[in-house]
Amino acid sequence: MRQRHKPWADTFLQENNHLVVPQAQQYKGRWKELFGNNNPVHVEIGTGKGQFLVGMAQQHPDINFIGIELAKSIVVTAAQKVLDAEHKNILLLNENAADFREIFADGEIACIYLNFSDPWPKNRHAKRRLTYQSFLEQYQEVLASKGEIIFKTDNRGLFEYSLVSFSQFGMLLNEVNLDLHAIDDPLNVMTEYEEKFSAKGQPIYRCRAFFPGT
Amino acid sequence: MRQRHKPWADTFLQENNHLVVPQAQQYKGRWKELFGNNNPVHVEIGTGKGQFLVGMAQQHPDINFIGIELAKSIVVTAAQKVLDAEHKNILLLNENAADFREIFADGEIACIYLNFSDPWPKNRHAKRRLTYQSFLEQYQEVLASKGEIIFKTDNRGLFEYSLVSFSQFGMLLNEVNLDLHAIDDPLNVMTEYEEKFSAKGQPIYRCRAFFPGT
Repeated sequence: MRQRHKPWADTFLQENNHLVVPQAQQYKGRWKELFGNNNPVHVEIGTGKGQFLVGMAQQHPDINFIGIELAKSIVVTAAQKVLDAEHKNILLLNENAADFREIFADGEIACIYLNFSDPWPKNRHAKRRLTYQSFLEQYQEVLASKGEIIFKTDNRGLFEYSLVSFSQFGMLLNEVNLDLHAIDDPLNVMTEYEEKFSAKGQPIYRCRAFFPGT
Repeated sequence: MRQRHKPWADTFLQENNHLVVPQAQQYKGRWKELFGNNNPVHVEIGTGKGQFLVGMAQQHPDINFIGIELAKSIVVTAAQKVLDAEHKNILLLNENAADFREIFADGEIACIYLNFSDPWPKNRHAKRRLTYQSFLEQYQEVLASKGEIIFKTDNRGLFEYSLVSFSQFGMLLNEVNLDLHAIDDPLNVMTEYEEKFSAKGQPIYRCRAFFPGT
């Protein structure tokens, strides 16, 4: 996503540190405390401008949502959207998903969403894909028993790769959908990218996978 | 596939029982003897008119191919195609794939091809799909260690179902391809159906799956 320089971003983040939580590591194992309830915690990696997270938070008031977004200039846009929607069940982290295990304790997360992640199409960049083995190892630790990874993308190559990666890592598939919008599902919350790609007639792929041993 | 009545079929099959093997059960565990060599045996379930099998046999002279086709009027068409091509590494069976375990011994098959199987789209017919659990149990017994199921279809619903069915049965995926003809692969042998559907611009799906424990 293109990042614009936003000189006011630092000030905005300081003023909204109740929403965009700084030094996320200090809350490892204590996220439910921060939400002030015992509801399950779902995490979206690569939240972008926040449309998915806000839509999901509205649809599921009994779930706590955490959105992780590395780009500061984008997380402020998501934060503004969350403030406008006034949902109390969302927190944002301006962090790197590679630091996942420093932010979350074992079994702390009930569900992980990967939405339209960077496909890194070159084979030599496979390690950067969010469905590469080293990331799956992290997800496995932080996910609760039977916790799912729900993965959406319009990128055929990334989807093909990810199904094989999940499988070879020992994950099981609960669902594979090769044209998510073929049937109008009112419960599917679209990301900004999803709206754009789907309008062009591109199929949207989705799968749900879990670690059977956990 | 539409079946025409062919009154000469019985005579033709009797005259060509070296190719369309009657009473296949008697060769259980002895298929390599019948081929007269020790090459691996690959089986296509639902051979139809035989284009795939003949193309594969030509491409892989060191592999023995067995095609199973339930419809008598269709197996004679396949047989005529095999006779014309003069390949010695093909046998045909006019049998029901449900009798798989009576025809093949444990570990006797190196690879199973499922090409454009009947999708049986209604949920109440799921048990008839060739990737339903009861069929996978049979494939697992007859497949040799690391033997693969290679599955091609143009039917999105059947492919989605089959990926989940393979996974939940404990099979691992070696490959998922959601648009087989996006890249021209000279090694891909097309079935009659595949040519027709692909010409209409429909994507062809393929996956390769295996049983890790065997």
